[in-house]
Amino acid sequence: MESSGPSPTSLNNFRVVYLITQMVGAAIVILMGSWIGVHLGGLSWTSNPATQFNWHPLLMSIGMIFLYGNSILVYRGFRYARKKPLKVTHAAIHGLAFVFTVVALVAAFDSHNLAKVPIPNMYTLHSWVGMAAVVLFGLQYLFGFVSYLFPGVRESMRSTYMPVHVFFGVLGFVLAVAASLLGLLEKAIFAMPDYRYLPPQGVLVNMIGLLLVVYGGLVVFLVTDPMYKRKALPEDAMLLTHSPSSQ
Amino acid sequence: MESSGPSPTSLNNFRVVYLITQMVGAAIVILMGSWIGVHLGGLSWTSNPATQFNWHPLLMSIGMIFLYGNSILVYRGFRYARKKPLKVTHAAIHGLAFVFTVVALVAAFDSHNLAKVPIPNMYTLHSWVGMAAVVLFGLQYLFGFVSYLFPGVRESMRSTYMPVHVFFGVLGFVLAVAASLLGLLEKAIFAMPDYRYLPPQGVLVNMIGLLLVVYGGLVVFLVTDPMYKRKALPEDAMLLTHSPSSQ
Repeated sequence: MESSGPSPTSLNNFRVVYLITQMVGAAIVILMGSWIGVHLGGLSWTSNPATQFNWHPLLMSIGMIFLYGNSILVYRGFRYARKKPLKVTHAAIHGLAFVFTVVALVAAFDSHNLAKVPIPNMYTLHSWVGMAAVVLFGLQYLFGFVSYLFPGVRESMRSTYMPVHVFFGVLGFVLAVAASLLGLLEKAIFAMPDYRYLPPQGVLVNMIGLLLVVYGGLVVFLVTDPMYKRKALPEDAMLLTHSPSSQ
Repeated sequence: MESSGPSPTSLNNFRVVYLITQMVGAAIVILMGSWIGVHLGGLSWTSNPATQFNWHPLLMSIGMIFLYGNSILVYRGFRYARKKPLKVTHAAIHGLAFVFTVVALVAAFDSHNLAKVPIPNMYTLHSWVGMAAVVLFGLQYLFGFVSYLFPGVRESMRSTYMPVHVFFGVLGFVLAVAASLLGLLEKAIFAMPDYRYLPPQGVLVNMIGLLLVVYGGLVVFLVTDPMYKRKALPEDAMLLTHSPSSQ
């Protein structure tokens, strides 16, 4: 654990970029909701497979994008909180993201299977990359839970696993962003016969895509820049007997 | 500049992962060529806009994926070479990648503009994300060239700019991978009316997409893991008066 933390100036910069990141993340969810409400017929669950599908992009953008990004940022965004509550919050936000993701997947599969002419599942590149992101996310959750929230795992093992957990956590997030871009594009092509003339709906979809790129870039910057790394607090060592090095 | 380099074991691991990365990169280009040759009608330049288009995915996967990845890996892959030849090689491979990219862009625009019924340019999310990647690439080249290959720039400025150059370089590479995934997906939807039944061509396209994800993950891992950072050689300081810290 390092002893010196970020300088006050770099922490001010962090706060500004963190705030912008939150605003971009919120804008993505709001614009996704607008697209669904204004152009895709809104939301329903059992009455209409086409609008049941619309839960998929909405819940995925909340779960796998907004919550996932916030969960990996929690150690740096709340750097003065104690380690244990941070770990529990990290796991809780990820858990919530997982629930959103599962319901989003059910919405997609249901909308395919219950359509009058059923649509095959898992054939596009979006579905392959998206499933890879979800599986990676699930494995990370499992290994992270066992390693860091379970008592009895050796400190040396926790420290060794930490860079692996961080790398695959960031990779999973980037994969989720890539999968979202692919999902946006295929829905745009399927839903807009006039996409090539770039109607307002097309501009909206492409803008959501660019915001996803910006959000992804900002989150990865904030979560990987060594300058913004959380400094271990004295309480971390005093209160926890098994504390992995802070990320 | 740090004085201690990677251990022999970690360098052995680097070599193995580096070799696998090269093989995955080569597989992407070969499979892209197979897709074009077997399923998309091969290559032509002036005779047929549809097959002129096919230069676009082929040259982009060579330029913005394979060469780009290799260019950012050159410092770590050839860590015992002197700094100056490494910088020149880095710039030269990127220069070559840029030439491939420009021709690839011309192929795409030509194929749209010269079609019997012209196809609008720059309307899909693929084109927006792809153009963002190319513009970022171009700006990086310009700023990198001025900062590190031009004499007379102050050492302190070079060092300050280095983390920015590295971050946006990696971001540009990841954007290029994301743009390639989007391009694969839209071409798959446009070219395969039976994509939903996952014909062999569909499996091929999706496999190229997954290999792109694997290649992107491996390159970013090799280029960012602190364990594999190039150690500054004594000659770096002796032979160059203006040497930025190695990346």
